[in-house]
Amino acid sequence: VKAADLPTPALLLDAAKMRANIARMNAAVARHGVALRPHLKTAKSAPVAREMTAGWSGAVTVSTLKEAEEFAGAGYRDILYAVGIAPGKLDQAAKLAGTGVGLTLILDSVAAAKAVAAHPLRWPVLIEIDSDGRRAGVAPDDTGRLLGIANALAGGAELRGVMTHRGGSYAARSTDELAEHAEAERLAAVTAADTLRAAGHACPVVSVGSTPTALFARDLTGVTEVRAGVYVFNDLVMAGLGVCGAEDVAISVVTSVIGHQPERGWLLVDAGWMALSGDKGRGDSGYGMVAGHPDLIVVSANQEHGIIARRDGAPVDHDRFPIGSQLRILTNHACATAAQHGRYHVLEQGEVAQVWPRFGGW
Amino acid sequence: VKAADLPTPALLLDAAKMRANIARMNAAVARHGVALRPHLKTAKSAPVAREMTAGWSGAVTVSTLKEAEEFAGAGYRDILYAVGIAPGKLDQAAKLAGTGVGLTLILDSVAAAKAVAAHPLRWPVLIEIDSDGRRAGVAPDDTGRLLGIANALAGGAELRGVMTHRGGSYAARSTDELAEHAEAERLAAVTAADTLRAAGHACPVVSVGSTPTALFARDLTGVTEVRAGVYVFNDLVMAGLGVCGAEDVAISVVTSVIGHQPERGWLLVDAGWMALSGDKGRGDSGYGMVAGHPDLIVVSANQEHGIIARRDGAPVDHDRFPIGSQLRILTNHACATAAQHGRYHVLEQGEVAQVWPRFGGW
Repeated sequence: VKAADLPTPALLLDAAKMRANIARMNAAVARHGVALRPHLKTAKSAPVAREMTAGWSGAVTVSTLKEAEEFAGAGYRDILYAVGIAPGKLDQAAKLAGTGVGLTLILDSVAAAKAVAAHPLRWPVLIEIDSDGRRAGVAPDDTGRLLGIANALAGGAELRGVMTHRGGSYAARSTDELAEHAEAERLAAVTAADTLRAAGHACPVVSVGSTPTALFARDLTGVTEVRAGVYVFNDLVMAGLGVCGAEDVAISVVTSVIGHQPERGWLLVDAGWMALSGDKGRGDSGYGMVAGHPDLIVVSANQEHGIIARRDGAPVDHDRFPIGSQLRILTNHACATAAQHGRYHVLEQGEVAQVWPRFGGW
Repeated sequence: VKAADLPTPALLLDAAKMRANIARMNAAVARHGVALRPHLKTAKSAPVAREMTAGWSGAVTVSTLKEAEEFAGAGYRDILYAVGIAPGKLDQAAKLAGTGVGLTLILDSVAAAKAVAAHPLRWPVLIEIDSDGRRAGVAPDDTGRLLGIANALAGGAELRGVMTHRGGSYAARSTDELAEHAEAERLAAVTAADTLRAAGHACPVVSVGSTPTALFARDLTGVTEVRAGVYVFNDLVMAGLGVCGAEDVAISVVTSVIGHQPERGWLLVDAGWMALSGDKGRGDSGYGMVAGHPDLIVVSANQEHGIIARRDGAPVDHDRFPIGSQLRILTNHACATAAQHGRYHVLEQGEVAQVWPRFGGW
């Protein structure tokens, strides 16, 4: 099957670009002599996961128990569930752990630590550290809270270490700033680990990461593992950060031209926010950019309609894009776009060679 | 099962609110003596569809061929596919029509009309009319294009009439303005139908609609049917338009508190954009509003994290919302939020009485 023969809209995955993205991350992390624990929330697909973990230990990161269950079903046995545990989920998590899966939890409060310690299973736990003030985690210099959590865990759970994610790296304006974010992320995790160790707590795991910081870190002293996920596909947000080029974006949405708006010079296509996601990224490419035509962007999207216009506002040459012709749209946020689809149409050497399933839900 | 015992995040559907929303739309449309052809793209669920079509002919509207196929499987036989047909989809559509389903297509160009007329099936077709300059359709006064399409269809297809959707009604600032949008929508469709009839083309169908215009139209003279969809659930965008109150929003996302951010006074919850959708609506409620606590909104969302803060910036009282407690989030756009979920947990008299499936994809 040619990509041009797919029913539209459809999610296309360029296997060669994906493999180049993976090889680049593997090399970047290996350079520091630390482990890679790929985050599978972007892909949610066992065949993609196998590409991401090849050559590593098979340790992975997930964002939901559903992902943990699905990837355990695909054979993964060392899974970090990297969203703060809700006490009400411990029984569901215990069912998975009971099948022999090593499932590590994270938390950032004494209340959650007490609930985990009181649960019948002896859970491996990482304390989440806040390295940018943007989301969850214990401030690295909040010794009282760090030790309060460690003490609450003692006896009922196994404190394995610390983890942090500097989402603030997405606000960087240069690759030098990305390196600074990586250093701040490293320092937050290492500082917290040192505090715990000084108080007598073993802290073998120091886990950090995001795609930008993993690729641009200059020093990972004290870090034991790096987590990253979106690198597998890349997207226009990553390209905007200078992490990759638009030509490195491995997924795209194939769409058909269904109309021409003569007065405004628009193309109407059958990919709306349902196929592209509603994520507008940093806003300079609308809902996406036409592959091979960087002057054309999706300026507006309804559920199943996309409106394509030129960045400069001039009318699109309708004769170049007749009704029924196909375009490929590169999108802002790979996690969000992939989540709108149930399968990847895998392009290898110009043909859709395979269809890989992806799951959703919780 | 109590809603509070659902694994989170989960999509909750309040059956009583849904039925009240449906009854209100039914009454609004019946008042004009025209037919209702509910749009099923919001719900994508056969049990919801049955509630929406009860008391009407069973005619429905869809936005994808997948929806047409699913609802045909649920017994629907009169389906309007209300997105401009891509010629490449005619064979897939023909398979469905071959099972005895009456599938009506829409188009707005001579090129598409020629492709449809050339296809072996004799397709019923509505010409899409542009009533607000925002998306697709033939301008109602573009007699040349209207008759060009009608002539291209003649012989190979059956011109059934015209349809329009005034999405511009979502920009109204008062219910009086909604009534003006409804009149402009009606006038566009009726004008185009009159032009076609004057040239000798039968035009039995004059189809208009959106939830706001359907509810606030004062006169539907010349219209034969109304389409609307989001009314079944309502959402914060509809509430912001004055179409309904926040208390009429029938779907919500149940979420658990997973953390407290002490310095900023935030609540962290396990509903991010994956559960809420990334749709920020008009922007005054972030990604959603906590039901029963209109002062609390989801100010930021990552894939599986939501950050809840007070509108006024003061810290949230963490003691009122302990780790593990549950909240319900009302969201901006029902179509987008529901699309992130595979099922509806149907709340009846305080209990989750049923689970209704919903489908996705194309």
